[in-house]
Amino acid sequence: MEAIILSIGGELTEGFYADTNSQFLSEQLTLMGINVIKTIIIPDNLDAIIENVQTILNEADIIISTGGIGPTDDDMTREGFSKALNLPLELNEEELERIKDIFKRYRYQYSPDNDKQALFPKTSEIILNKAGTASGFYINNNGTKIFVLPGVPSQAKHLFKKFIKPKIQEELKTKTAYFIAKNLNIGEGSLNEKFRKNIEHENIEWGTISKEDGIHLKVRAMGDDADNIIKKIKTKVTEVFKKNIWGWDDDELASLLADILIQKNYTISTAESCSSGLISKILTDFPGSSKYYKGSIIAYSNEVKEKNLKVDKKIIKKHGAVSEEVVIQMAENVKSIIKTDCSIAVSGIAGPDGGTKDKPVGTVCFAVCTPEKKKTYKIMLPGNRNEVRLRTAYISLALLLKELKK
Amino acid sequence: MEAIILSIGGELTEGFYADTNSQFLSEQLTLMGINVIKTIIIPDNLDAIIENVQTILNEADIIISTGGIGPTDDDMTREGFSKALNLPLELNEEELERIKDIFKRYRYQYSPDNDKQALFPKTSEIILNKAGTASGFYINNNGTKIFVLPGVPSQAKHLFKKFIKPKIQEELKTKTAYFIAKNLNIGEGSLNEKFRKNIEHENIEWGTISKEDGIHLKVRAMGDDADNIIKKIKTKVTEVFKKNIWGWDDDELASLLADILIQKNYTISTAESCSSGLISKILTDFPGSSKYYKGSIIAYSNEVKEKNLKVDKKIIKKHGAVSEEVVIQMAENVKSIIKTDCSIAVSGIAGPDGGTKDKPVGTVCFAVCTPEKKKTYKIMLPGNRNEVRLRTAYISLALLLKELKK
Repeated sequence: MEAIILSIGGELTEGFYADTNSQFLSEQLTLMGINVIKTIIIPDNLDAIIENVQTILNEADIIISTGGIGPTDDDMTREGFSKALNLPLELNEEELERIKDIFKRYRYQYSPDNDKQALFPKTSEIILNKAGTASGFYINNNGTKIFVLPGVPSQAKHLFKKFIKPKIQEELKTKTAYFIAKNLNIGEGSLNEKFRKNIEHENIEWGTISKEDGIHLKVRAMGDDADNIIKKIKTKVTEVFKKNIWGWDDDELASLLADILIQKNYTISTAESCSSGLISKILTDFPGSSKYYKGSIIAYSNEVKEKNLKVDKKIIKKHGAVSEEVVIQMAENVKSIIKTDCSIAVSGIAGPDGGTKDKPVGTVCFAVCTPEKKKTYKIMLPGNRNEVRLRTAYISLALLLKELKK
Repeated sequence: MEAIILSIGGELTEGFYADTNSQFLSEQLTLMGINVIKTIIIPDNLDAIIENVQTILNEADIIISTGGIGPTDDDMTREGFSKALNLPLELNEEELERIKDIFKRYRYQYSPDNDKQALFPKTSEIILNKAGTASGFYINNNGTKIFVLPGVPSQAKHLFKKFIKPKIQEELKTKTAYFIAKNLNIGEGSLNEKFRKNIEHENIEWGTISKEDGIHLKVRAMGDDADNIIKKIKTKVTEVFKKNIWGWDDDELASLLADILIQKNYTISTAESCSSGLISKILTDFPGSSKYYKGSIIAYSNEVKEKNLKVDKKIIKKHGAVSEEVVIQMAENVKSIIKTDCSIAVSGIAGPDGGTKDKPVGTVCFAVCTPEKKKTYKIMLPGNRNEVRLRTAYISLALLLKELKK
């Protein structure tokens, strides 16, 4: 099965925003075994929409469009599909009531401009969008499945998972199953080699990709036995990479760590040098993080490490600020200064300057403390300044998570 | 003039990465007065490249392609353009020598796979890529200007600015001039209204967009008198929005702040609550930030505000943690605890929970201290949790910048 993604919006073709919807959809469709042969980005222009929809109609089995179904004059997508498919727009009374109700609930003045959001091309099935006034729609056009979604990324993602994914899966002739295993502390090359050597991979497709939170291993099986094959491979992968895997599929490091901290009723603080607040920022990305996160001391300079974090000056002089000896003091001291159960400390050379022969750019030292244990690590990280800092932050979270899971 | 962008790469159609090149190119071309009518993203597939290139050849005056000109087997772009345009690939000896030299310089083993990077379609002008082995190329195909760039974003951006932008400008029949003014502490609606009322805008195109570092006002003029018109409008904009503008065009807040701190030989620390390390992280995004940035105390909990930042408990009780009375203490104390010349402190309600009638979600208090002065602000910020935190960070930098510029 082949798919084409159509992203509609002047804000995209004028470069105001990146088209993140098409990336999300491409990733999801690829995992499902569907070949994304093209993404097209066009402005909210009626002729362009009609022309492009008509062109791609015969090029793919699935068409997913995002954007341009709001209430304003420049929202042309529903009209575009209606004209391109020769399916007149019809008012859906139920949807009109729902939209009016939303305005009532938020006590906004209802403008008749919004009526058009209750118009759908004839034969459409409505893709109900409970998060907004712009519901999407689905049309089966001589076998070509056409899905039209709103452009708001959170809404597009949600509706894809809720409506489109099951709809496609149900019609897929070949069954597909997959998983993503998220790994840290292993290079992409080594992971590839270890996988190839240790895991029977004749009946599957697999690949790796390097992301800021580690190497993602994607494995996919197709056919009637797909579920079974994937189950077996997943067990084997868990075994082979047990030291590296921190999560699966949609898992996020900060969220897993939050769960376990809350479950154990532990609090956490950080002492950061090269990451300079990034760990602290990621730990508080979720609402409710005040349950476990208390605060941090960012010690970018050695003075702050000595005076505010009370790291022994002699230890810094002897081992250097980027050393396991220094980070363990940073972690122990921040834990007692801020009075938390757990702590994370990092110090490293993010570059591009500051590297030496012994400690080249990318050298990062980590320490994690829990009420039961403390551990240090020295790890070489690839990438530019930004990448080294991001990897530092995510690895530090993974190291603490590992300790807390024991 | 109309342009089409062609992004080539399986990593894009499989959703591994977002296509940031097309966003950058769209923004740049739009500013130059060129209409981006479509972006197409396709995999590294020879047939797909040939077919799409042939289709768009007659649809636009300018075609810019990125990706797929490296040395590996799946890099098909040069072959695709060669076949689509019927221009055979020819070896460029000079470029071959340059590529071999790069390998020599880095002491890598040269593989003949790299020879293909010295092949260019007949009639091509080489777009020399000093940052890598994959140079781009330019072909004038019966008036259609075709530019083929490498996919690495930093290289694509650089080559666009260095080669493509002047090349297009030189051939533009209508001259274009523009500026972007970056504003803080003003809503998009008010900015629009104020601009419309105070600035003569008959001969220009203008628009605003809300970004994390403020409202960007884009103004463009076309025609022989474009430079003059833009110069006049810029003077007027500077006057009307003098309280709001923190920078122009490519300016970045952290970078402007770094410049002025270095120039004045000042150091800085931060005390952060709701932004939880984000200000500290942004301040150190650039290498060399240790010249001015020392460290921070992240006081997410009130305990840390009281015990570690020495904020008066009674003041917190009386005014609440989100108050100008508390942030000024945070700023003054972090300045003396970490011993810096300047400091920034923020405390706010990032949401989605924690808002009250008096202090709804989005309420953020700021304090900035310099050796000469201290100031506090209370500002309501729109957006979700992530947006409120980003805006908090950027506004705090802008407030300090404003103080230091005085």
